[in-house]
Amino acid sequence: MLTFYWARGTCARATHIALEDAGASYEARRIDFAKAEQRSPEYLAINPKGRVPALVTPQGVVTETPALLVYIAQTHPQARLADLTDPFAFAQLQAFASYLCSTVHVMHAHDPRGARWADDPSSWADMKQKSHGNMRDCFQLIERAMFKGPWALGDAYSVIDPYLFTIASWLEGHGVDVAEFPRVAAHFRRMGERDSVRRVLDAESA
Amino acid sequence: MLTFYWARGTCARATHIALEDAGASYEARRIDFAKAEQRSPEYLAINPKGRVPALVTPQGVVTETPALLVYIAQTHPQARLADLTDPFAFAQLQAFASYLCSTVHVMHAHDPRGARWADDPSSWADMKQKSHGNMRDCFQLIERAMFKGPWALGDAYSVIDPYLFTIASWLEGHGVDVAEFPRVAAHFRRMGERDSVRRVLDAESA
Repeated sequence: MLTFYWARGTCARATHIALEDAGASYEARRIDFAKAEQRSPEYLAINPKGRVPALVTPQGVVTETPALLVYIAQTHPQARLADLTDPFAFAQLQAFASYLCSTVHVMHAHDPRGARWADDPSSWADMKQKSHGNMRDCFQLIERAMFKGPWALGDAYSVIDPYLFTIASWLEGHGVDVAEFPRVAAHFRRMGERDSVRRVLDAESA
Repeated sequence: MLTFYWARGTCARATHIALEDAGASYEARRIDFAKAEQRSPEYLAINPKGRVPALVTPQGVVTETPALLVYIAQTHPQARLADLTDPFAFAQLQAFASYLCSTVHVMHAHDPRGARWADDPSSWADMKQKSHGNMRDCFQLIERAMFKGPWALGDAYSVIDPYLFTIASWLEGHGVDVAEFPRVAAHFRRMGERDSVRRVLDAESA
C-alpha cells in the first residue's frame, strides 16, 4: 500500500495522475499549504524538505517528481509508462523530466515564491514580472525542440505526459496562452480528456 | 564513441567524473563560456538549451546531469555506478540527483546568474546575498537527512558521489566552509583523492 501526499495546484499533480494511470493502489492525503501543514512536525518527519509530493512506500519515503514518476513506472510495468530498458530512450525521458523540474518549474516558482531566493519585496516584484517571459521562452523551446508528438516523447504515452500537462496548466497564471504553442496545446487538450486526469482534477477541486 | 561537451567550474564536472569512473571511451570538448561558445550556432545545434553538459551518443544527444549520470551507469554496468534494478534504491538515487539539480544547483545559480530570473541589478545583489545562506541550509539538510555515508547513498559508490562533490565544491565561493558539515566534508576529501576526480580537475585547470 502506498500513501501519497499532495497539495492543490502543485507539481504533485503529475505524480497523482501517474498513480491513476498506473492503476496503483494508494491512499491520497492532502497537505494544506494555506495552513502550512507542509511545515508541521508530522509532515517534516515524512519529508524533511517540507515539500510535496511525497510517497510513503513499504520500503520508505520517495520524494522529488522525476524520481516518483520513474518509481511508479518501474513498479507498475503492466501500465507501460516508461521505456526503462533502452538507455538512450530512458535518457530522453529523464532529460525531459529534469528540464521540467530544474528549469521550467523553477522559472514558474519565481512568480509565487520569490522569497525563496531574495529578501526585498522589490526583488520579488522583479522576479514575478520576469517569470512570465521566461515561461514563454521555456515552452517555445519545448514546442520547437523537445516535444515529439502526439505524446511528449513520441508515439507512446509516458509519465512525462502528466508532468508536461501539469506545468502547462500554470501558463494561464503567467498570462501566457497555451495556444501560442500549437502542439503543446493539442497535447494539453488531449490530456484533459483522459479519465485519470479528470479524476485527479476532481480530487483537487473537491 | 561518445563526445562530451563541458565547461570549467560547471556541473558538467559530475558527468565528467562519472565518465572516468565508468572507464568510458569518449572525447571531451571544452566549451568556453567566456567566449559565449555555448550560444554559438554550432553548439546550439547540439544542445538548443545552450547549456552544458551534453553528450553526443551514436543514437543522439543526451543533456541534463541526472539523465547523463544514469545513462552512463546504465551503459557501463560493469562499473556498478548505480543500483538500477531495485525500484526503491533507484528512486533514492534519483531523488538525491533531483534535489541537487533542481534545488541546490538553483540556489547556487542565484549568485552568479541572477539575470536569469530578474532584470534589476539590485535584485541580483539581493539574490547573491541570499544564496549563501540558502546553500548552507541545503547542505545542513544533506548532512542531516540525506547523506548515508561513507558514500552519498550508503556503502556503495554511485554516480551521486561525483554530483555531490561537484556541488560541494561551490560552497567556498559562497563563504561556507564545508567543514560545517562533517560527513559531507569527509566525503569531499575522499572524493578528491580518487584518480578519476584528479584527472578531471587536471583537465579543468589545463
